Amino acid sequence: MNYSLALLGATLLLAATAQVSQAQAPGGMEPPVKSPEVSKDRKVTFRLRAPNAKTVTVARDGAQPAPLTKDSAGVWTFTTEPLTPDIYSYNYVVDGLLIADPVNPVVRPGVSGGHQSLVTVPAVPPAVWETADAPRGTVHHHTFRSKAIGDERDYYVYTPAGYEYGQDTYPVLYLLHGLTDDASGWVTAGRANVILDNLIAGGRAKPMIVVMPNGYGLPDPAGNLGAMFQPGAAKKNREQFTKSVLEEVLPQVEKAYRAKSDRESRAVAGLSMGGGQAAHVGLNNLDKFAWIGCFSSAFVMLDQADQAFPNLSAKDNERIRLLWVGCGKDDFLIQSNRSTVEWLKSKGVKHTWVESEGAHSWPVWRRYLADFASLLFR
Amino acid sequence: MNYSLALLGATLLLAATAQVSQAQAPGGMEPPVKSPEVSKDRKVTFRLRAPNAKTVTVARDGAQPAPLTKDSAGVWTFTTEPLTPDIYSYNYVVDGLLIADPVNPVVRPGVSGGHQSLVTVPAVPPAVWETADAPRGTVHHHTFRSKAIGDERDYYVYTPAGYEYGQDTYPVLYLLHGLTDDASGWVTAGRANVILDNLIAGGRAKPMIVVMPNGYGLPDPAGNLGAMFQPGAAKKNREQFTKSVLEEVLPQVEKAYRAKSDRESRAVAGLSMGGGQAAHVGLNNLDKFAWIGCFSSAFVMLDQADQAFPNLSAKDNERIRLLWVGCGKDDFLIQSNRSTVEWLKSKGVKHTWVESEGAHSWPVWRRYLADFASLLFR
Repeated sequence: MNYSLALLGATLLLAATAQVSQAQAPGGMEPPVKSPEVSKDRKVTFRLRAPNAKTVTVARDGAQPAPLTKDSAGVWTFTTEPLTPDIYSYNYVVDGLLIADPVNPVVRPGVSGGHQSLVTVPAVPPAVWETADAPRGTVHHHTFRSKAIGDERDYYVYTPAGYEYGQDTYPVLYLLHGLTDDASGWVTAGRANVILDNLIAGGRAKPMIVVMPNGYGLPDPAGNLGAMFQPGAAKKNREQFTKSVLEEVLPQVEKAYRAKSDRESRAVAGLSMGGGQAAHVGLNNLDKFAWIGCFSSAFVMLDQADQAFPNLSAKDNERIRLLWVGCGKDDFLIQSNRSTVEWLKSKGVKHTWVESEGAHSWPVWRRYLADFASLLFR
Repeated sequence: MNYSLALLGATLLLAATAQVSQAQAPGGMEPPVKSPEVSKDRKVTFRLRAPNAKTVTVARDGAQPAPLTKDSAGVWTFTTEPLTPDIYSYNYVVDGLLIADPVNPVVRPGVSGGHQSLVTVPAVPPAVWETADAPRGTVHHHTFRSKAIGDERDYYVYTPAGYEYGQDTYPVLYLLHGLTDDASGWVTAGRANVILDNLIAGGRAKPMIVVMPNGYGLPDPAGNLGAMFQPGAAKKNREQFTKSVLEEVLPQVEKAYRAKSDRESRAVAGLSMGGGQAAHVGLNNLDKFAWIGCFSSAFVMLDQADQAFPNLSAKDNERIRLLWVGCGKDDFLIQSNRSTVEWLKSKGVKHTWVESEGAHSWPVWRRYLADFASLLFR
């Protein structure tokens, strides 16, 4: 208790990085750079201390990769033009190696080399995905041993503000992630909890529970990411996922939470792979779900529509409260989404088709969630 | 809906990495390597695809940094000797740049360049920190606007298995993290939820709620990490932290959860910075806490003991149910821990002193938590 605080501060910091300091180049103990930094005029500056790198680029949502330039201290920097307010995913590519920003604590973990850093360019007034004055809901993390899939897995549950203090029951949205996400994706990158907080506080959505399961129907998704598309594995993926959601996650949720359990109080939606799964789970189980949302969906993972939805017909229109299909004009899946919508028309199945701006990325999905959630359970 | 699935698999994977593929070196679209891989004889193989790197080392808990070697495909590899079963934190250092393992989804996020990858070397039978057959508790994530500190912050709450279905009330352990951790540290690296699940299932700990707050008493911890040790800032850090925990987090928890609120049903413990805070919060608020745990504590952040605990004396022994102080023999803080224990003796304050094997690292803290939690609320 008799050292100087300053010396001990240095000692503690050293200890925190002790194992790595020995391996770092000279200068490696310099304080970390600030990255990213967002200016008042909405420019983002990316920085990386990497004195020995030959090339560093930053790859982000909606932009071509941009080269950073190195200063005499070995810090690489790139500043964007003013950006549209949004949350942007980005990675650095350092001499060909893809990494997340080492000093940015906001990361969306990926299952297979997909860690992405996130930066928010704020809007005035705050956008629906930004934390503002709304009362806060809670995000609950559950783990369980899945018999349907044969592995350890997890899911997240959002409950709206006030849930803990009341006795109300709530409708439930099952919200499914995409390939390379893990179960946290709709929270970390999708900001589903913040979006719902804001919508509910503004009276723009009904208070609801949101369940975000692990979307892989095969164990070891990192090892099986490619396999998910092989014909046999893709079928097994969606069938086992559906079984796990309906027979494991849903009963657990309805036991642990004050969840309404009639079909009119259950929705299922998802993005990309999860959009295909939402269609598969929802349209084949209209006894359980009345509201379905398909965001930039990989309908292509479902084989042919006639085989994927063998029993679907115009007779189901009375049970479908909402079938919402959206895709960005610049999405690489736009053609198959248009084809699927044509197929729905040919079957006389009522639906809402939104062809929006945007590509296959989170800025689109956050907006879709806000739009879709606003329509539910009314 | 009429492409071949194989082609579409490739297309989807491409899209998932579209922004970065253009920036990557040739070969960048090759499937990610498997890393880390744990063999049956408890050797860990670390791999990194980085064809253009000059040197790659791996730095992990309890070992000197080890060099990886590159094969003709540009994949760097290092295999350890058989390791003692444990969970090991590690980072790569690529040409002087410290990074987490890009393909390992298990990451402990850090506030300032501290993302660390984690690998579990399993024990037979499973260690207390490994997921096994125990019924699972739930981890809840809360956010709020702190008036005490003036920022947005968060905390995690563990509830034991069955909490959702019952009416029991539970004692509460406040569990504080260390410098460079964020509020999730005790879950991601500390496995507090898994440890409690296993202890409770085995009858080795009383069912309890565990609250894991953000431990920084200053806003923008990444920007203020060094400042936390400057005399004025260190004081402000602990005083604002204490105020936020006692006046914001504790009342929120006791409103939202079925938490017992008598002093005999409240414990506070922490590691490193959090160990110092646990002493500060607990010993100065014995009207609120009866059980205190200090793991590898940065008592050095508290100024002199006489000033940090001005009212502490042997008269408090009747209120202290447990004051547990532990530190590893190889910890850089061992001397100040021994000094603090001597000071406690000189004051006649009863305590339990554990001088264990180990350094300033998570393998020590997971064991301390298991030992400490087993003693609580009995």
